[in-house]
Amino acid sequence: MSEKITGIAASSGIAIAKVFVLANPEIVIERKTISDKAGEVERLEKALATSKSELEVIRDNAKVELGADKAAIFDAHLLVLSDPELVGAVKSKIESDSLSAEAALDDVSSMFISMFENMDNDYMKERAADIRDVSKRVISHLLNLQFASPASITEETIVVAEDLTPSDTAQLNRKYVKGFATDIGGRTSHSAIMSRSMEIPAVVGTKTIMEKAEQGVLAIVDGLSGEVILDPTPEELDEYKKKQADFQAQQEEWKKLVNESTKTADGHHVELAANIGNPGDIEGVLNNGGEAVGLYRTEFLYMGRDKLPTEDEQFEAYKAVLEKMEGKPVVIRTLDIGGDKELPYLDLPKEMNPFLGFRAIRLCLEQQDIFRTQLRALLRASSYGQLKVMFPMIATLNEFREAKGILLEEKEKLVAEGTSVSDNIEIGMMVEIPSTAVLADRFAKEVDFFSIGTNDLIQYTMAADRMNERVSYLYQPYNPSILRLINNVITAAHNEGKWAGMCGEMAGDETAIPLLLALGLDEFSMSATSILPARSQLAKLSKEELTKHKETFLNLDTVDEVIDYVKTHLS
Amino acid sequence: MSEKITGIAASSGIAIAKVFVLANPEIVIERKTISDKAGEVERLEKALATSKSELEVIRDNAKVELGADKAAIFDAHLLVLSDPELVGAVKSKIESDSLSAEAALDDVSSMFISMFENMDNDYMKERAADIRDVSKRVISHLLNLQFASPASITEETIVVAEDLTPSDTAQLNRKYVKGFATDIGGRTSHSAIMSRSMEIPAVVGTKTIMEKAEQGVLAIVDGLSGEVILDPTPEELDEYKKKQADFQAQQEEWKKLVNESTKTADGHHVELAANIGNPGDIEGVLNNGGEAVGLYRTEFLYMGRDKLPTEDEQFEAYKAVLEKMEGKPVVIRTLDIGGDKELPYLDLPKEMNPFLGFRAIRLCLEQQDIFRTQLRALLRASSYGQLKVMFPMIATLNEFREAKGILLEEKEKLVAEGTSVSDNIEIGMMVEIPSTAVLADRFAKEVDFFSIGTNDLIQYTMAADRMNERVSYLYQPYNPSILRLINNVITAAHNEGKWAGMCGEMAGDETAIPLLLALGLDEFSMSATSILPARSQLAKLSKEELTKHKETFLNLDTVDEVIDYVKTHLS
Repeated sequence: MSEKITGIAASSGIAIAKVFVLANPEIVIERKTISDKAGEVERLEKALATSKSELEVIRDNAKVELGADKAAIFDAHLLVLSDPELVGAVKSKIESDSLSAEAALDDVSSMFISMFENMDNDYMKERAADIRDVSKRVISHLLNLQFASPASITEETIVVAEDLTPSDTAQLNRKYVKGFATDIGGRTSHSAIMSRSMEIPAVVGTKTIMEKAEQGVLAIVDGLSGEVILDPTPEELDEYKKKQADFQAQQEEWKKLVNESTKTADGHHVELAANIGNPGDIEGVLNNGGEAVGLYRTEFLYMGRDKLPTEDEQFEAYKAVLEKMEGKPVVIRTLDIGGDKELPYLDLPKEMNPFLGFRAIRLCLEQQDIFRTQLRALLRASSYGQLKVMFPMIATLNEFREAKGILLEEKEKLVAEGTSVSDNIEIGMMVEIPSTAVLADRFAKEVDFFSIGTNDLIQYTMAADRMNERVSYLYQPYNPSILRLINNVITAAHNEGKWAGMCGEMAGDETAIPLLLALGLDEFSMSATSILPARSQLAKLSKEELTKHKETFLNLDTVDEVIDYVKTHLS
Repeated sequence: MSEKITGIAASSGIAIAKVFVLANPEIVIERKTISDKAGEVERLEKALATSKSELEVIRDNAKVELGADKAAIFDAHLLVLSDPELVGAVKSKIESDSLSAEAALDDVSSMFISMFENMDNDYMKERAADIRDVSKRVISHLLNLQFASPASITEETIVVAEDLTPSDTAQLNRKYVKGFATDIGGRTSHSAIMSRSMEIPAVVGTKTIMEKAEQGVLAIVDGLSGEVILDPTPEELDEYKKKQADFQAQQEEWKKLVNESTKTADGHHVELAANIGNPGDIEGVLNNGGEAVGLYRTEFLYMGRDKLPTEDEQFEAYKAVLEKMEGKPVVIRTLDIGGDKELPYLDLPKEMNPFLGFRAIRLCLEQQDIFRTQLRALLRASSYGQLKVMFPMIATLNEFREAKGILLEEKEKLVAEGTSVSDNIEIGMMVEIPSTAVLADRFAKEVDFFSIGTNDLIQYTMAADRMNERVSYLYQPYNPSILRLINNVITAAHNEGKWAGMCGEMAGDETAIPLLLALGLDEFSMSATSILPARSQLAKLSKEELTKHKETFLNLDTVDEVIDYVKTHLS
């Protein structure tokens, strides 16, 4: 019987396919002694071989889909599989204790796991996690259990899960995964952001989908309204097939704008840029008509590895992005690690309030070796395109000055070494901490540009963790206080002849766009897939008309009044 | 040999006395069997009795020093001591297993502790902590170990500790404890705030005092400069005795201002109010010439208990404060729980970023039974003095409207029941979330007053957890962005004919006072002990002169420039 579940629309589009529930079965290992020891060793080797080829497929797939950096965790898994110490220990356990292969592997891997976990070293703890993953995979094969792996999906499906981890998403194959629905997460959670960058319709935060969805049942994911329909009626199926066709028709319409420039109805140009995480994302940016990269998050270069990326590795990645963008502007943000983004090999202390903690530029200014390596790689890459460097989490002018000073020092050193470095690198900063939005006029004298990071700016300004569902009602992009801070930043930039962009979720939001245009935002950086709809929307808006409303909407009381005002006066 | 250790000045004054190291000795229990079972039972009973009378002294002391609410945790400890189930089990263990009393008690209490700790209930987990404390106390007596209890101090000492917990400070006897020094904590940590409210010189955050201070060595705590000197030379001793005498002379000078009104050099009046946590604090407020209570933190009424306080208990506390203040204004803040202040019996979920979480008004608007009970108690108390009600952690106008609406509803109900309620209750809010400072002009139309909570406002505006030492350099009260927000709030209030106060640490700060006077702050609420120095400082400042500098210092770039400016132009 058809059932409708409401969640949060995370990535637009309509998907219709059978459900693939990504739940790991409970593994129960009977500790029975066996007589055919040679047979057990053979079973073990077969399971190891199956797991190995499975993992190789996953890794290769991840490389293509998500880049070599994300695929690296599967190399680590493969290493575990062929570790002679571990495999040897399992075999002797089968021989000496007459144990079944699964029981022997469970014993040996548990021993290694507890050994690694008890080491006071996050890197070794990660290795424990790898062993746990891999032995679960092998044991599943030994027990003929269906191991829920997104990579094992080979027909069109809608993936249903509690949540999707980075390691899960690394395995998703765009060809078969038509949509997904998760119990937890919000619009800015990892799985939501991934779904948009992969252009897969998605609904997150449904709370009950895992409980209600059965394996193989037909489902509809409506990433426009945030609804999931399980076992739809024939009428619903027809309705949504039509909705899907309409959506696709609109997509086609939008596609026609790919090579158009972005112009408002009254002829003003604004720049529509894209947020990316990997060089591999550039293809999507160009296919969607992106005029620039407004935010290249360099964190992914540092994640899913066991040590810092070298200067050369970074140089190659930055160069690749700049070259692929063929002279179009590329804003690269320096490392924003810490907070919810941890690097096990940096061994950062646990914090009580990580969002208010030691992260991003704070960490880079203290651990300057990391920072200088990245800056050198950026500077070396600068001659391959139009690089703009941006510092994250700046709170004070002293921090900006110090960061800029270090960049200029490294530039001088490189030039002295005879390395070619561009002379036109703009140096800017994220505005995501309220102090900088309030003091924007002072900052504007020293920066080349601002990029407003609304995700953080909103959570600090409202003092509400955007990942915490109990206070998510306070994550209000259109709250008049947020609009005033944005206005302050844009005005300050323009008074000094600088430009102001935005690289938070808000920049691609349909309700926000008229407000931001009225406030004079110069650059809108968003998910690549939002660019064409934004271009289409902007073409219908008159900047001059909207600007007349600025003083009025900046003096509204509440977010509801702002939303009403957009509906009645600005669309 | 004399040694100087530098920490953070937490509470002013000079203390000279012998060190009392508050470190708990390691307890090692030998598991030997005994033959004289009756003798062991007797030893046990003696230790129980000693612990009991010790705890009664501590409890009575805490009641006098810190109020009944804080003393309640020792009642809980006494209950454990006389719990027949626990004591009976220890006795049978001695009998059946021929165990020593300490080993038997250790076994039984460990069993209870693990039982309680494994319950999914924070209240029961707290009981586990009580049992752990109490059995440690009894075992210490059985082993003749010196149990480091601040309450056992009966001569003049300087208490040296890793940190002081609320339960430690509850036991400090002002008569004997002349000063204290701790390894961890900052100016706004619990132990620092307590030291100021107890008027005990204190230095916190020394990092090494526990390692370096020996029991009984003579020490000097300089709460003015933040230094501790261990084993001072005769010259140092003379120097600091003079410094102490000077400080006391200045204190005497200040005392003369107790009954004076607060006037600037050019005749402007501002209100100097005090922050309090308990009705018992009012004596200190009046002794220090407080003109009002600018912040009564009602949280303490809810803490150290096993259930919510009743309406009547709250009514009595609020009435006591209002009556003791004899018609002077009393700003009572409604419950600000959550974040770092937990109530075990409310069973709030753990949060990833508690400072950005479900706390204060957010919790009160959802759990309205708690909120309404408090509001009724406040309304009933209102006829006993000049009550002003203040809501904490307001982020949006809708929250303020809803909270005010509930207050008015309860007022109507009480009036309908024939209860006498004052008709002149001002209803205001804390400004501690950046959004409200930015939108202060809109809020000012609806509130009766603002009170700026700088502790939180600074940490949100700078996105830096004030308890996190790695980012504490960003806790910048004089950052120009903070001064601009404060200016915005005061200007907005005055434009609507409302008043603006401040109840954060900043209000009593010598460097901040000239800035705040220039910005037009109407009410300064601080630790009671800061009132007279502030009155003395204000008498030397001309508001009109300072105001001329306002536009200049609001346009400085960095906190260092502001501090320099205060030194060179505003003192």
